[in-house]
Amino acid sequence: MTVPSSTVTVVAAGTIGLSWTALLAAKGLHVRVNSRNPDAGSLVASAIRLYAPAIPGAEAADMLSRVVVDTDLARSVAGAAAVLENAPENLDLKQDLFAAIEAAAPPDALLLSATSTFAPSDVGARLKDPGRLIVGHPFNPPHVIPLVEIVGSADTPPELLDRAARFYRSLGKNPVTLRKPILGFVANRLQSALLREAINVVQQGVVTVDELDAIVTSSIGLRWAVIGPFRTFHLGGGPGGLRHWLEHLGVSLDENWAQLGRPAMSPETIGLLTGQADLAFGDRTFEDLAAERDRDLSKILATLTGDDPAQAGT
Amino acid sequence: MTVPSSTVTVVAAGTIGLSWTALLAAKGLHVRVNSRNPDAGSLVASAIRLYAPAIPGAEAADMLSRVVVDTDLARSVAGAAAVLENAPENLDLKQDLFAAIEAAAPPDALLLSATSTFAPSDVGARLKDPGRLIVGHPFNPPHVIPLVEIVGSADTPPELLDRAARFYRSLGKNPVTLRKPILGFVANRLQSALLREAINVVQQGVVTVDELDAIVTSSIGLRWAVIGPFRTFHLGGGPGGLRHWLEHLGVSLDENWAQLGRPAMSPETIGLLTGQADLAFGDRTFEDLAAERDRDLSKILATLTGDDPAQAGT
Repeated sequence: MTVPSSTVTVVAAGTIGLSWTALLAAKGLHVRVNSRNPDAGSLVASAIRLYAPAIPGAEAADMLSRVVVDTDLARSVAGAAAVLENAPENLDLKQDLFAAIEAAAPPDALLLSATSTFAPSDVGARLKDPGRLIVGHPFNPPHVIPLVEIVGSADTPPELLDRAARFYRSLGKNPVTLRKPILGFVANRLQSALLREAINVVQQGVVTVDELDAIVTSSIGLRWAVIGPFRTFHLGGGPGGLRHWLEHLGVSLDENWAQLGRPAMSPETIGLLTGQADLAFGDRTFEDLAAERDRDLSKILATLTGDDPAQAGT
Repeated sequence: MTVPSSTVTVVAAGTIGLSWTALLAAKGLHVRVNSRNPDAGSLVASAIRLYAPAIPGAEAADMLSRVVVDTDLARSVAGAAAVLENAPENLDLKQDLFAAIEAAAPPDALLLSATSTFAPSDVGARLKDPGRLIVGHPFNPPHVIPLVEIVGSADTPPELLDRAARFYRSLGKNPVTLRKPILGFVANRLQSALLREAINVVQQGVVTVDELDAIVTSSIGLRWAVIGPFRTFHLGGGPGGLRHWLEHLGVSLDENWAQLGRPAMSPETIGLLTGQADLAFGDRTFEDLAAERDRDLSKILATLTGDDPAQAGT
């Protein structure tokens, strides 16, 4: 069988794998989806139809023509330029998968794991060449959100990290290569820190779940879509910049941090949050809410990059 | 002197006061700016010319025609429908200002403080009717960012909070009324929680200041401009919603929170952050960076609200 040089393999057809499949196919790559799920074929077809509207220029039938589903792992990765693993967060499973992938994939194929919890040295522990394993941690849904956090192990050559970054950039993503591994990677740690205080103020009865969401979307979320936290405070310092801000207001940060809440995730807390969420979102379906989210995200991205928002938003 | 019923007073011509002045004038209100700064007139004129492009439909000369600067506080608030106080964060000063404002303003004028640190009961402590004092805490810059956090004291009638919300809504803002006062209000607490972990990962050498900003704008910032943290996890739970997410992944939240960093704001930390900020942003002026921020914010807002982005973005 001849393999086009633009062939990539997606291992596992869960939420992340299906989203990657749609994006890869939309970008003109030939995609082999490796899955033992007997429904994988129809899951791929549904996902492509669902996600195509959020990818500028994508056309579902065209995308589908470049995707095949295969139950055999060795056959799926033969000749592939890159293998994107998106299996469940089970270290033993991922280690076995990559040992089998290394044995059957070309020696220069990019070996990429979307793990959100394990270090690259752990996921690649059973490889003959553990340094080949690179984590490319996407942000859900990867066919829309630009960020991919790239992390290698101490054994990973810098050139290989650069190749991985170029690969993600060719898909229209914004890869950021971490300078060292950290548990949970960066974006999820930041998200977790904010969520902690969000749960605290809801628990204290200051706002409800939907009021909290409205506060975020109409202030910090909007601002952080345009400029990150450090540039925010660089501008908050006026012409003196971040130095002025930190030297004058930064001293109160330690005090502010001491005031932050430390909620515990008790059954009562979960009951309070889910009860309010049911009131706020319970009357709308998952598909409806997700489609609205992806449409608005695509519109913002098109606006910021100068693409045609009419095309991206429809 | 006849006072148009659409007259409002802005007390203090600092960053926030000037931004409010521009927005109020753009919305067709007559604005009296009370300031003893001999440069207030030219500051107002500069601010209006600088901010008009970020306010859809605004025209600087038209705005300027509705603004007067007055050094006398009693004269400034006479006949005003609302008084927006934006003085420095000095409680004694604010208490004195509001005692004088109450004596000279109409008995039904909205008395609004933009304090970011004091409770409404403290700011209004020297009023004859302390319940009249309402905090309307904006997010910088208020002529662009929609959020206003409204907080009253225990003495504030609910109808008065509703009137304040309607006033801000008439300016195109998204007011959210907090159900009880909390130190620092909600958005700044959330921001502070995220900043703490942002500083931690930079201090640990995982990413630089500008890499951290890129991570935020291309993932959580973008997402939080569209949906807040709770709706994010409601969708993260799939069709089972927030309940499914909290019951399955929420249990790991306590562990994640225990892993978050606790940086201290030492001179070394400030030196590290400002050194990296100088490298990242140091070659651009404050005005240039601020104008870019406001232009992109206006574009996103126009996109999300369906207004003409061409008009708002130019």
